[in-house]
This record gives sequence, C-alpha cells and structure tokens, in this order.
Amino acid sequence: MSPLWNDYNQSKAFSKSVLSLMGSSKPPANHDRRIILLNTQNRIDRPIKWGLSTMFQSYFLRLHSKEQSSILERVRMTTPFHPRHTHKTIISGAPEGGHKTVISWHGGVYMLHMNATIDVILQNANALNDKFSEIHPWHFHDHDWLLAYREGKFEPQKDEAKLNLKNQPRGTRGLSFHMFGYLDIKGCVVLMGPRTKASKALVLRFSLSILFLELGLASRVRHFKWETEYMFWSPDCIENVVLGINGQFPGPTIRARAGDTIVVDLTNKLHTEGVVIHWHGIRQFGSPWADGTASISQCAINPGETFEYRFKVDKAGTYFYHGHLGMQRSAGLYGLLIVDVAEGEKEPFHYDGEYDLLLSDWWHQSSQKQEVSLSSKPFRWIGEPQTPPQKYQRGSLQSLLPYCTKKFNVLTSKFVACNISERISICFASFKENFMPYIHPHYLTTTLLLLPFQDHKLLVVEADGNYVQPFLVDDLDIYSGESYSVLLTTNQDPTKNYYVSVSVRGRKPNTPQGLTILNYVPTSASVLPTSPPPISPLWNDYNHSKAFSKTVLSLMGSPKPPVNHDRRIFLLNTQNKIEGYTKWALNNVSLVLPPTPYLGAIKYRLKGAYDNSIPPETFPGDYNIMVPPTNPNSTYGNGIYMLGMNTIVDVILQNANALDENTSEIHPWHLHGHDFWVLGYGEGKFDPQKDDAKLNLKNPPLRNTAIIFPYGWTALRFMADNPGVWAFHCHIEPHLHMGMGVIFAEGVEHVKNIPDHALACGLTAKFLMKQEP
Amino acid sequence: MSPLWNDYNQSKAFSKSVLSLMGSSKPPANHDRRIILLNTQNRIDRPIKWGLSTMFQSYFLRLHSKEQSSILERVRMTTPFHPRHTHKTIISGAPEGGHKTVISWHGGVYMLHMNATIDVILQNANALNDKFSEIHPWHFHDHDWLLAYREGKFEPQKDEAKLNLKNQPRGTRGLSFHMFGYLDIKGCVVLMGPRTKASKALVLRFSLSILFLELGLASRVRHFKWETEYMFWSPDCIENVVLGINGQFPGPTIRARAGDTIVVDLTNKLHTEGVVIHWHGIRQFGSPWADGTASISQCAINPGETFEYRFKVDKAGTYFYHGHLGMQRSAGLYGLLIVDVAEGEKEPFHYDGEYDLLLSDWWHQSSQKQEVSLSSKPFRWIGEPQTPPQKYQRGSLQSLLPYCTKKFNVLTSKFVACNISERISICFASFKENFMPYIHPHYLTTTLLLLPFQDHKLLVVEADGNYVQPFLVDDLDIYSGESYSVLLTTNQDPTKNYYVSVSVRGRKPNTPQGLTILNYVPTSASVLPTSPPPISPLWNDYNHSKAFSKTVLSLMGSPKPPVNHDRRIFLLNTQNKIEGYTKWALNNVSLVLPPTPYLGAIKYRLKGAYDNSIPPETFPGDYNIMVPPTNPNSTYGNGIYMLGMNTIVDVILQNANALDENTSEIHPWHLHGHDFWVLGYGEGKFDPQKDDAKLNLKNPPLRNTAIIFPYGWTALRFMADNPGVWAFHCHIEPHLHMGMGVIFAEGVEHVKNIPDHALACGLTAKFLMKQEP
Repeated sequence: MSPLWNDYNQSKAFSKSVLSLMGSSKPPANHDRRIILLNTQNRIDRPIKWGLSTMFQSYFLRLHSKEQSSILERVRMTTPFHPRHTHKTIISGAPEGGHKTVISWHGGVYMLHMNATIDVILQNANALNDKFSEIHPWHFHDHDWLLAYREGKFEPQKDEAKLNLKNQPRGTRGLSFHMFGYLDIKGCVVLMGPRTKASKALVLRFSLSILFLELGLASRVRHFKWETEYMFWSPDCIENVVLGINGQFPGPTIRARAGDTIVVDLTNKLHTEGVVIHWHGIRQFGSPWADGTASISQCAINPGETFEYRFKVDKAGTYFYHGHLGMQRSAGLYGLLIVDVAEGEKEPFHYDGEYDLLLSDWWHQSSQKQEVSLSSKPFRWIGEPQTPPQKYQRGSLQSLLPYCTKKFNVLTSKFVACNISERISICFASFKENFMPYIHPHYLTTTLLLLPFQDHKLLVVEADGNYVQPFLVDDLDIYSGESYSVLLTTNQDPTKNYYVSVSVRGRKPNTPQGLTILNYVPTSASVLPTSPPPISPLWNDYNHSKAFSKTVLSLMGSPKPPVNHDRRIFLLNTQNKIEGYTKWALNNVSLVLPPTPYLGAIKYRLKGAYDNSIPPETFPGDYNIMVPPTNPNSTYGNGIYMLGMNTIVDVILQNANALDENTSEIHPWHLHGHDFWVLGYGEGKFDPQKDDAKLNLKNPPLRNTAIIFPYGWTALRFMADNPGVWAFHCHIEPHLHMGMGVIFAEGVEHVKNIPDHALACGLTAKFLMKQEP
Repeated sequence: MSPLWNDYNQSKAFSKSVLSLMGSSKPPANHDRRIILLNTQNRIDRPIKWGLSTMFQSYFLRLHSKEQSSILERVRMTTPFHPRHTHKTIISGAPEGGHKTVISWHGGVYMLHMNATIDVILQNANALNDKFSEIHPWHFHDHDWLLAYREGKFEPQKDEAKLNLKNQPRGTRGLSFHMFGYLDIKGCVVLMGPRTKASKALVLRFSLSILFLELGLASRVRHFKWETEYMFWSPDCIENVVLGINGQFPGPTIRARAGDTIVVDLTNKLHTEGVVIHWHGIRQFGSPWADGTASISQCAINPGETFEYRFKVDKAGTYFYHGHLGMQRSAGLYGLLIVDVAEGEKEPFHYDGEYDLLLSDWWHQSSQKQEVSLSSKPFRWIGEPQTPPQKYQRGSLQSLLPYCTKKFNVLTSKFVACNISERISICFASFKENFMPYIHPHYLTTTLLLLPFQDHKLLVVEADGNYVQPFLVDDLDIYSGESYSVLLTTNQDPTKNYYVSVSVRGRKPNTPQGLTILNYVPTSASVLPTSPPPISPLWNDYNHSKAFSKTVLSLMGSPKPPVNHDRRIFLLNTQNKIEGYTKWALNNVSLVLPPTPYLGAIKYRLKGAYDNSIPPETFPGDYNIMVPPTNPNSTYGNGIYMLGMNTIVDVILQNANALDENTSEIHPWHLHGHDFWVLGYGEGKFDPQKDDAKLNLKNPPLRNTAIIFPYGWTALRFMADNPGVWAFHCHIEPHLHMGMGVIFAEGVEHVKNIPDHALACGLTAKFLMKQEP
C-alpha cells in the first residue's frame, strides 16, 4: 500500500537518506556566488506560467563543454562576472502583484565565472491556488551537484551553517536529480543548497542554456513585421529615393530586454532587388543563419518573399541594424536596436533620461550609381557626402533652423531615431538644467566623425555594448560601425543654448560641420549660442584620434583575454589593382562574395561554392608598408579562414600605404558573431618580438569594431566559440564593396536548423532541391 | 546459313513482298505536296554527320495530336503552307561541295497543310567513302504510311506511274517501318515513295518534331555567354547608369537561322538585383520556362548566378529581347534577335542589304526612381523621355552632328545595333543610289513613334515576324513591342541627302523630333538636306494611326483564323485607384505578380501561390467607357485565365476613359507564347450582334502585339496550343508595372523538364527543397 500522495514526510525522509559514499569528492567549503531561484506560479498576460524569481540577483548557466584543460586555464581569467551579461528575474513573492505581468516574460542567461563555485538555492513557494505548493524535479545538464534540503525560507544567516558539505550525494553527468518540495502553510521550504564548480565546461553552451531556460523561464518574444521598399524622402531637404522600412527612414527602432527573442518577419517589397538585414553587434549564438549577411549567412530575400529573422539578444547594449547586400546600407536601410538591461537590472551609473543618436552620411548620388562608380575602370571614388546646396551655408544657423523645423518636431526632448544626415544636425536636444542624459551615438557609414557638445564634458561609459572604464572627453571620436554611450550633465548657464557639432575627420572633409542646438529648457530653442560652434581638430590630426581610442579600456571586472593565442592571422591592408580595377585586398586577396552562402556550402560540404585554397595567413616579411605596393596587382578570392572551435585567435591588422603616395587611410574593422579584445595599437609594422610584450592583457576593451590607423597596426584577440560563418571587414561600405574583408568560419558542423529558405540560391538550392520525376 | 551481309537483293525481295491485306485502306491517288529527302553523309566542321538534302523544298513535320474533330475542321483552314514557316534543306548532291559546311547545320520544321496528302521520297546516295551506300531504317512517329521501293534516282516523270497505290503495306502508329537501300554504282536508288495524310494530328507536335529532326538533321546550336551589369554610358551625351550586356548597350545582337537552338548562359553580375530576359516574339514551344518572365515562367536569376536559356527559334523574323523584371527594360536591358530564313530560303521579295533599327526611349531619371515614382502616393508619372539639355536644339543639326560623330562610326553602311535614343538619331544610313535596303525597325519602350524617310516611300512587308500584304507608306506608325520590315529604294536625287525622322505620337510630345541623315554615297554625309525635316501629323491624329494599323493584312497564303471561337474573354482597360495608388486594371483587377512563378506553382499544384479566384471574363454591360470610372476603386489580383488546351480563344480588348476626363490612351498589348490574329478594330464598345459580322476572318494579320485605340476595341483570336504560362500585357513598361496585364495558362500538365533553378524561389523552392535531417 502506497503512502498517501501528499505524505511528503515519507518523500523527504527518502531523499534525505541519499548520501554520497565515503570517499566521494566533497564540495568546496565556500561559494563564490549564490543564486536563489524562487519557484512561483504566475499569470502572464492570460495563461498560467511557471516563473523563477529571486530575492537576489539570479543567473542562469550558459555552458560550453570543452575538454582541453589548457583552454580552461585561460578562460578562467576571461569570463568574470559582468553585470551586463546577467539577467535578474523578478522578485515576485506575490504572483500577479504590482509588476505589469507582461514584463515578467524573460529568459536571461546566467554568465558564470569559469571554475567558480556556485550555490543555487531553489526556493519553493505557494502556487496560484491557496495553500498549494508542488513538487518539482530539477535537472541540471552537464554538471554534478550536491544537494541539501531545508524547510521554510532560506535565510543565509541561519541556514548557512546547516548545509551539509560533507557527504551530500553528488550526481553524475546525465542523471536527473530530484528535489522535492512540499507545502508549509507557514511559508516556504528550502529545497536545496547545491554547490558546484563550473569545472567541466569552458564556456557555457548556448544550446544547453536554451534548454535550461525553457525549463524555467518564458522569454519574451518580440514580433515585428517589416516591409522594405524604396520611397521618396528628403533627409536633407533634397528629395531622394531611400530604402525605408514600413515607410520610415531610418527604419523603426527595436527596443528589447536582454534575454528576449527578436522575431522580424521581413518582407521584401522591392521589385528587382534582394534584401537582407544584419543585426550589428548581436552575436547570433545558435542562430548564425540570422546574421543577415548575403552570400555568407543566407541567400538574399527575393522580391515579394518574407524571411523570418529569429534571434536572442543576450546582452544589453545599444546596437543597430543595416543592410548587408551591395550598397543597400548607403541607400538608407538601417535603424537602431536597443537592448535594455534585464528587468530589475541597472547600469552601473546614474542618469535621468536616454537619447539615441544615429549618425550617418548621405549622398545625393543613388546607391546604385555609387556601386557602379566603385566597380568602374577607371575607378571613380564616390566622393564625400553632399550638403544641401543653396539652403545651407556653413555656420549659418539661420539656414539650418527652418530646415530642422520642417523635417522634425523641434523641441521634442528626444533624439530618438534622429538622423544627422549630411552631418547637418536636424534635431534639438532639449534638457532641463542639471539633467543627465544617457546618450548613445551610433555611427554607420564612412570613416570618422567628431562629436563635441559645446562647453559640456562627455563621460564615456560604454563602447559597442560593453562597459568601459568611464573617462571624460570634450568630444567623441566615432567610426563607422561603432556605438558609444556617454553621459553629460546640463550644468552650464541655463539661460543659454549650446552647439552640438558633428564633423568629418580622417579624410579631407568636403562636407561642412553639422550643427544642432543643445537647448536648456525653458530657454527658447531659438536662442542662438553666443560662442561660435566648436572647432574640430585638423582632419588628419591622428594623434587626437589615437589618444581617444587608446583611452577606451574595459570596466574593472570585465572579461579578460586569454594570455595566449592558438593562432595568429596577420592581415595586410593594401589597395591594389586587379585587371585595371581599383580594389582593396588582405594579404593580396580581394574578397568577392560567391553566390552560394558559405553557411550552407560548408555545412553541406558543397564543392565549387567558394575557393578551396586557404587564404594567406600573413604577408611577406619584407613588405614595405610605407610606400605604395611595388607590384599593385592582386587577385580575387573568396576562401575562408577555418578556425578551430574554441580556439583563441589573434588578428593583427596591418595598415599600409595605399596606391597613392603618402596615403594611408583609417579603416574600422567589424567582426560578426563575436566581440574581440583590442589588445593594442601601434605604429609601423607589428613586430612580435617587440610588440607582443606591450599588448594589454589586463583591461583591453571588448568591442566588435576596431580601428587601424594610417601606417599602423591593431591587435585583436577573440575566441572562436560561435558555430557559424562570420564576416570580418572594413565597415566603410564602399571599402567592403571593393573587397576589404575576410571570412571566418568555426564549428559549422554544429549548426542546426538552418531554414531552407535561407539557402534557396546557388549550389545550396541545387543541393536541397529535388525535382519531381 | 545467312545470305551475304551485302546481298541486298534478298532484302529487297523480302521488303517488296510485304503488301497490305486486301481490304486495307488505300492511299489517296494524288499528293498535295512532295518532299524529297536526299540521304547523304557529310562533313560538317570536322565530324562526319548524316544530312538530309533535297533537290526540292523539303519540310519537316510539326505535329500536334488532337482528338476533337471539330477543332480539326477549323484548323484545316488555319495552317496553310507559309513560306516563312518552312525550312529548305541543302541540295548537297556533292557532299563537301561548294557550300560552307557550317551552313548545313540546321533543323527546320516542315509545316504541313492540315489533312494534306504528302509524299516523302527518301533518296539514298553514296556516302563519303567511295562506292558505299548504307541501309537506313526510317521510322515515322504517329503516322501510318505507305511504302514503295524503287531503284536509282527518283525521277517524277518516269517513276510516278510506277508507285504502288494499290496495296503497299500501311504501318500502324508506333511501329517502325524499315526501308532498305543499297548501293547502285550507277547512282542511287529510290527507296520509298510513302504517301500519307496528316489526318491524325491537329498541329504538328513540337516535341515529336524535335525527335524527328534529331533523327535526320543536326540543328545548329548557337551558344552565347552573357553577363549583365550596370555601367556608365552616354546614350545621349548625358552620362547615365545603364543596364548592359557584356559591356554593351544595347546588348549584343543575336543572329540565327530558323530551326536553330539558341543557348544563352546569362550570368547576373548585378550586386543586388535579380534579372531575366524575355525573347520577345519567340513562342517557346516546348520551353515555356525560357520565356524569361519573372514570376511567370521562372524565378529571377540571383546575383552571381547563371541561368541557361535554351530555346528553338522556329520561325524566321526580326525579334528583340529585353528584361522582364521591374523596370529593367527602361534601364537599358534589350537588344536584337534576328532569325534569318533557313539556308537556301528566300523572302518573297528582293532587296540589296539589311539594316536593323532598334528604337527606344531614354530617361535621365534612373529606372529605380521611375519605379518608385510609379508606386508613389500621390502618383507621379515618369514624364516624357528627356532630351540632352544645351547640346541639342530642335532641328539644329549642327548640334547633333558632332554628337553622332563622337558616339558612332559615321558613314558606316549599317544601322545595326544603332540606338535612336531620345528620338535623336545618332547614325547615318549611307546607301548607294538605287540601293534597296531591307530595314527592320523595332520599337521597345513607350507608346507610338512615327518614322518617315524623307522623300522616300516605305514598302511594309512584314510585321512581328509575319509577312504582310505589301503596302506603301510615307511613314511608319510603330508601337512599343512591335517590329516591322520595310523596303525602300534610294531612287531620289543622289547629290542630296535626306532626313530620317522619329517623333512621338499618341501622347502629347515633349520630346523633340529625332533626326538622322539618309546619305547617298558618294555624297558627303555632312551635306544637309535642303528641305526641312518631315513634319509629323498631330500627336492625337488617331485617324492617321488607325489607317496605318488597319492596312496591315496578312500576305496571301498566310494561315487563316478558325471561323469560330471556343471562348471569348472581354478585357476592359481602366485606370483606377487602389488604396490611393494609381493603377491600371482589367475588368477591375490590377495585376500584382506573386513571388512564386506560376509555371511551377501550377505544375506542382501549390496552394497559396496565387489567387485561386478566377479573374472576371467580362465587365458590366452598362459600363460607360466614355467617362472616368464612377467608382474608381479596384482590387489587386493575380489569378489566371486557364485556357483549354487547343481551344480557340478570342480576346476583346475594350478601351475606356482613364481617371482624367476626356482621356483615353493607346495601349499596345503583347501576348507571350503565341501569335494572334487581329480580327478587327472598332470604335466605342464592342457589340457582338453588330461587330462580330465585321471581323476579318479572311486575311487578318498574325501578330504578337496589337493596339487598342482611345475609346475603341480590338478583337484578337488565337489558339491555346502552347503548354505554358503566358503573360498578356500592355507593352508600355510603366503600365505593366501599374498592373496592366493578365495571365493565361494552358496545358501546364504537359510541361516537362523545367530546370530546378528556374523555380528556386517562393513556394516552388519550398516544395522542391528537402532539408537534410
């Protein structure tokens, strides 16, 4: 005869009797971190859901199995706890309580220090029905753990001492551990105090973490229905055809929370062109086919068709999205993607409001014509972005004001989705006195802009979605592909307004300074600043730019790079001639993307989809970077750098003289699918003997875009831990179009569930299509 | 023991003993036509080939099996012998004789009168080796025939009487009949005098005729490798981006002979756009997937990919090709396709030289911008084509001359591939006195041009690849999608030059008259004509245009239309509003092409690929065509008119008032996959009671493009005898873009071997792709 179904004492007695055999390994005495997961039943929107809430910060595990202990050793130092990587669940002692229920949909990732000792306290609670609490068997993938059961609410002060660290049972990988909870009408019961070491894993594996999350948390899925089409628009008073989304330019801003899933159903309403959208800065763990790079991660979406981009935004940050086919970015296909910290989280600084600034260039020449220009023989450079003729005179605010009035709502207190095209500002930033806005300037198109706020210091706190050691500047150097977060305080004379200026640097500027007004409310927005607009440093004052870039360092506690690398790839940036066409090349290979997407071609091992030859790992030691190439001839190629899964890769970007004498340009290099550590910048040619020792392994910033300065080098390090195929390229769109990029691939054999429609072109289509007999 | 291998007497004796059973059907006493096929062995290029040559005209069979005798009845009258439909093989009594051997590659089609009695004389001959003639067993598909054997060379006078019309064996369908030939050292041997009636077939079936041809004739396959890309070009002194082929604008001219197979490997070198090419006027029997219509016959070719267009040009004529996706035709994607009569054939008139004239408009606005304009709300008409500002003044030849000199070789004696853009001529036509050129003006883009040759009469002899009853005119009315052949004689004062003029009609012209010089060599090309350029009739002098169109009648002996129709579709042409957008509609449905090509969607019966609803067959009887639509609202649609295979279809195109009052435009309607008979034009609304009797069933012209005049109707008739899906649309590209078209489909279940790559998009891709597990 069975005991009663709810005779929990019987069950508890049984469970508590399970103890480890003498001689078994014992848990560490202390924990590095403790995560308390409150098991609650909730109502979200309408359906009943189970949620995990916590009285403290709680983190899910993101695990990555890995055998090599040498790698483990390195990573121990590289993934310390980082608040931006975390996800705090809701304290919902009262289900259906004060929180708007919809907010409690989420699915964050608990980033653990490598080899840290973690306590997880599973705290049971009353469910939705009165006097009802259920048993839940929790299973932990890939880890052993140690169990302890206690009753009531876990109280560290009181219960800590009672935890059995001697002979609690230790599971083995692959077994389920059952933890029983039962109703205590006085409150809740401590079920478990597991203590584990994240010792078996290198990095927390994404696919597992999804499974894990699905056990406990319902992520919020944010759906968007977008249509891309050309439309008439006047970004700068001059009507032009722009590539918009849902009738907007720039495209709609996506706002989400860390852990959310973004679903964009993108319908291509163009008549002849394909389209893709790349989510710049989103690493696409587990969804490399959603990276939105034509010929790399997917086929372009055909006219009339819809493609579903579905991906997780695992990390808070201010990102953007843009076209990644031909010159569609220049045509206007871009917008903001802002991932807020998880509910209940906060950035490690204070601010009063948030303002997003999307900076981009604008050409009057169509992107189509630009494309043809760049592919012409003789080469035709597209030139600098245009300014609106007649209506605008440099420094003349009179001519700017009506323009701004016409195009945007003046005196709105937000910069959101404000396009500073032509580097002529078109919005007012209106703030109260002593207001501290959190400003996110993003920059998309050409090389370098300088962004000062007159008479105001800017506190830089974030770069490319990673916190940096805060530093004060008068102006912000911002390159194509970068994003920053800055804080300022409106602590100047409140009866005056101030200029905000944007100007081109890095190439001889033919585009005048763009200006807007920092408006102190209630001062009228039409009160002109008394002092002239800020004067930019000279366009080629690279010391100013280098000083800025070198000041960007990671916030204390940020992940550190591994000490050693497994592979080092040198990439010599040269301008070349191929059959009379002007091209950019890396180690003398100029990238021409193939019609078949690499992701499918590699996954299905299709022959002839791309160059089989391995692109060169370095360049001749005697190459003189200070003069134009003696033999400017180069070759086209589309081979790939195949990276060992979970290896540590260094890239040394080596700048050189272009085709013209005394010319070496700035290039902002952007990596898909990863952040990298910027280990250092240097002058001349990188010399391992001399320069290796100088690399910053202490607090290099984690970024997705890095600059090479004229005649200099930049050293990057990253872990190839994201199965997929990833572009690494100069973010100046014309340069990419001219071949300035390489392709990295890692662990493609692990990629699952590539949607068919992502591969319905080229050889993958051929491979996957079966003709009816 | 067998007789000797070459004891042909034994074989002959056996064969000649095979006679039909008494009571079997007997052959007709007389033949309507006799085809003599000389069996020769030849050397073409290098390899040894078998050829069929004849001392007379010889015709292959093009058969179409059909059960309905009612249809048979009709067709008997519709397919009389037409010299342009024929193919004459070479008289090559002497293999490797005077003919350039390459010329003897061919594969024509013998068009037979329906129910005609045909004699085929298979004439054996010596092969390449001396004293050697082989046995050949000939098999005739789908027909019975009667056999007679004779020796030596068939001589009608002598041998006619000896033919056995009494009891020669009659084959049954599907059986092979063997005819033995043997060497007669004195000459050759008459093998066979079959006499057959083409009674089992309606039209000669293409797929069978191919098989048949392959037995006997080696068709010439003409290979082309094309790359489409944008390039800078100055068609009118103003540099612009044009869509060229192999670096040329207009694209390369294809020249072939009737019966040839054209293979174009088209590589799309555009970066973001798909591309297709439609072969205007080629009916694509057996290759409907090669019709080059995006969304209809195939998916657009993706950037970087290559698609093989492979099709037969069965009928001599002067055709063109052009883009059929978005507005790529306006972007410059077009060229000439000229199919000469088969070797040894001649047109039924004399001429001294040939000149091809490709007429097209040119806008300075990019086709992309035109596309956006047409899809804008409020609607923006693209306006009239531009003229080059400054450099050109109307009537001022001084400004034209240097332009022409710069762009083209002046004083070449050819118009070939000459683009009269802007209607400003850019080439000289230089002729000797009393020279008679055969001129082919083709027109591609907007409505109507008028083309007079000053002081010279034009003899119109052909329209859309079909001979017409020759007629003399002072000027040629030519509409978008049409082609003509005209003859003129340079019989004027040879010391003078003359103007050739092109001007816009049918819409208020804002584009000046285009002029070129008809140069009498050795008169200098710079001698200006003494009289002013020809003056066009008023742009809206429709009587002039109607008179011209109505004069176009078929050449005597051309195929006649069936007397009755099986189905009649009325198509009311209206301009409408849909959600505020300006559109064109047929019976209130405005065509929006779906992403999945119809050909695949119908073939594989895919749900949801297009509107299931059948588009309306007519319009309300009380619709007042003389005023703007009272309810201008219309709907989008992409349903199909499914036509019964081999049915006779009438289309009554009914014009009406557009959205503006007192406005009704000219529309040139083009049908893919067929020629149609233009049975008549009329004013006002078509009234069957009144107008049916007036239709011209005697000598209506066969065409692929027909005009509807303002407030009038045009009646067309065609046989739905070509399995495939076929667009029928206004050939003004902006009008098609605005929905002015319908889709016909017939016999799609018979379509075989659609290349996978033609369907690698939309739902067909989904259907045909299988994801690896």
